[in-house]
Order: sequence, then structure tokens, then C-alpha cells
Amino acid sequence: MATTDKTSTRDRLLDAAGELFYREGVSIGVEALCRTAGVSKRSMYQLFTSKDEVLAASLARRLPAYEAQLVPDALEAATPRERILHVFERLEKAAAESAYQGCPYLAALVELKDPEHPASVVAGGAKAGMKEFLRARAEEGGARDPDLLARQLMVVFDGASARAGARIETLDGLTVTTATTLLDAAGMN
Amino acid sequence: MATTDKTSTRDRLLDAAGELFYREGVSIGVEALCRTAGVSKRSMYQLFTSKDEVLAASLARRLPAYEAQLVPDALEAATPRERILHVFERLEKAAAESAYQGCPYLAALVELKDPEHPASVVAGGAKAGMKEFLRARAEEGGARDPDLLARQLMVVFDGASARAGARIETLDGLTVTTATTLLDAAGMN
Repeated sequence: MATTDKTSTRDRLLDAAGELFYREGVSIGVEALCRTAGVSKRSMYQLFTSKDEVLAASLARRLPAYEAQLVPDALEAATPRERILHVFERLEKAAAESAYQGCPYLAALVELKDPEHPASVVAGGAKAGMKEFLRARAEEGGARDPDLLARQLMVVFDGASARAGARIETLDGLTVTTATTLLDAAGMN
Repeated sequence: MATTDKTSTRDRLLDAAGELFYREGVSIGVEALCRTAGVSKRSMYQLFTSKDEVLAASLARRLPAYEAQLVPDALEAATPRERILHVFERLEKAAAESAYQGCPYLAALVELKDPEHPASVVAGGAKAGMKEFLRARAEEGGARDPDLLARQLMVVFDGASARAGARIETLDGLTVTTATTLLDAAGMN
């Protein structure tokens, strides 16, 4: 072969996997995955021990971009309250896109139904990271019970993203309004 | 054959399907489904045109029991506020069971990723029925914007059930506390 670039094969496989699992669900088979990625099964199994590992790695690969979209660095100067509300503004913007299918991490957890699956571990970590971001901002902003507020906000985030992804809700300000009510009730500036 | 009871074959198939799809996900194949139900594929295809129709019918069959669990008739004498909070108390009770995997209707919608799938139509109807129950109670209780409040409560219900089902949240009063805050903010008695 003229070129054998393992890094780019890995990237191509994970990008295709991320998109395909998001669009079609985690039950997509190895055949369809490799066909879409333009990667042979042999190449896939040289890089990963199983489809489960591909799924886990594709979710991990997507995480920095996912977090940057919801929590931009540029907002570090904003108040804790603004930073929390910004997450919901970004969620609503993302949910308005025609390809939106909800949060990929919650979807993976719902579909896999197995907290010990390697991809569930990645997804659970993504969710825990986001909750910790909200909890830390709630604490900075003087919320009475930062952990409770963060749990409430995660419930709103996940419920809204699942419902919007399933096309049974059009957010249109719903999560920003709801988060504002919860921030106010928590006594947060 | 000694007995050919189509009704009981149908019931057995749908009960097994409902349990299996809930526990393992909607991607379970026809082989596993028929094996678990103790029904031949031939019998299945005499009753239903496709696995999709079995899934839709199993969700529809489960709906009356699901609704009765969350919204008992016996509570008709309670206030609208009590009836709303009772839904969340029941959700928390259900979510504490070890076999809990979240709301079966939301899970089907998340997994199928197709609002036009016959099972998505059933699931969407279940969700719309619950939202209408909450909206009607919100209106009776004098909420400022009954539709907004019902949408907020559905987001809390679905977010909490998905997170508890995925084992990334232990509700422990979380949804009752959150619903109370939202009812108060909506000016509901």
C-alpha cells in the first residue's frame, strides 16, 4: 500500500462512528460502521478490540467540541449566572437544528442500558463534568444549595434535550425561562 | 392443535415484548423476541405485519397501567397541586426500583430516532396525554401560564426519569422539590 496512516484511519473511523451512532443509534453493526467510515473490518480490529470500544472512543473524541460549544472559553469574564444561562441558550440553539437528536451522551446511556458499558462510562463522565461546571458556578454565585441546583439544572438540560431531539418539544426559550426560575429560587445572584 | 387461542398468544407476545424492549432496547430482533415470548415467528406474523407493529402494540398495551400508576383515580378528590405533585412522588418511587430504566415512552422515542415510526407515534401520544393531564391541573389550580408550566413539568419528568434510569441520578425528592418551585413560581395554589 502507498500510505498506511493509522492516525488518520482512527480519526476517520471515530468521526464516522460518532455521526452514525448519533443519527441511527448505538445498535448499528460493525459492517455498516466500517462501510460508512470507508475502513476495513480488519483495520478496525487492529485499532480497537470491539465495537463497544469504538463507540466509547467516538464519544470521548467528541467531548471537547461538545463542551466548547456549550461553555465557550470567551465567556470566562461573565458572571456565574450568565455562564449558566448561556449553557441553556446554546442548548436551545443546537436543538433548533434539523439534525438535532438530543444530547449524544444521554442518548448513549438510554440506549445502552448498562452503566458498565465502556461507552456508558464515557457518557457518564461527560454528564458528571457538566454537572460539576454548573455546581461550581452555582457556588460562586451564592446559591443556597449548589449541588441541588446543579442536579435540577441537569434534569432540565437532559429532559429538554431528549424531548427536543425526539421532536415532542420545541424549546423556544423554555429552558432559559425554567433555569432562571430555579436560579432565582436558589437565591443565586 | 388442541387449543389455538389467538388472544392469549397476542397477550403473551406483547407482554414479553414490552418487558424485553424495556430491558434491552428496541433493537432486539424478532428471533429473541419470539423465543422469550414462547411464540413462533409464524404466529407473530399472523398477528402483526412487522416487529415495528409489535413494539407499537406493546407500548400501547402498557399505557393504561402506566397512567394508572402515575395518576390514580382515587386521587380525584385531591387538589390540582396535590395531583401534580403526586405524579412526581410516584415517579420517584418507581425510579427507586432496581429494574427501573426510565420512562418506556421516552426511551422508545430516544432509541427509535424516527417520529414517524409506529411506536414513536404511540410514545408521543403517551407523552402528550401526560402533558395534557398536567396542563389541565395547572389551569384548574390557577397557574399563570398552564401550558408553560406543563412543558416545564414534562421536562423535569423526562430528564429525571432518563437520568435515574441511566443510574446517573438518585432522585430522592429532587423532582418533588423542583416541581414545587415551578408550581410556586407559576402562582399556582
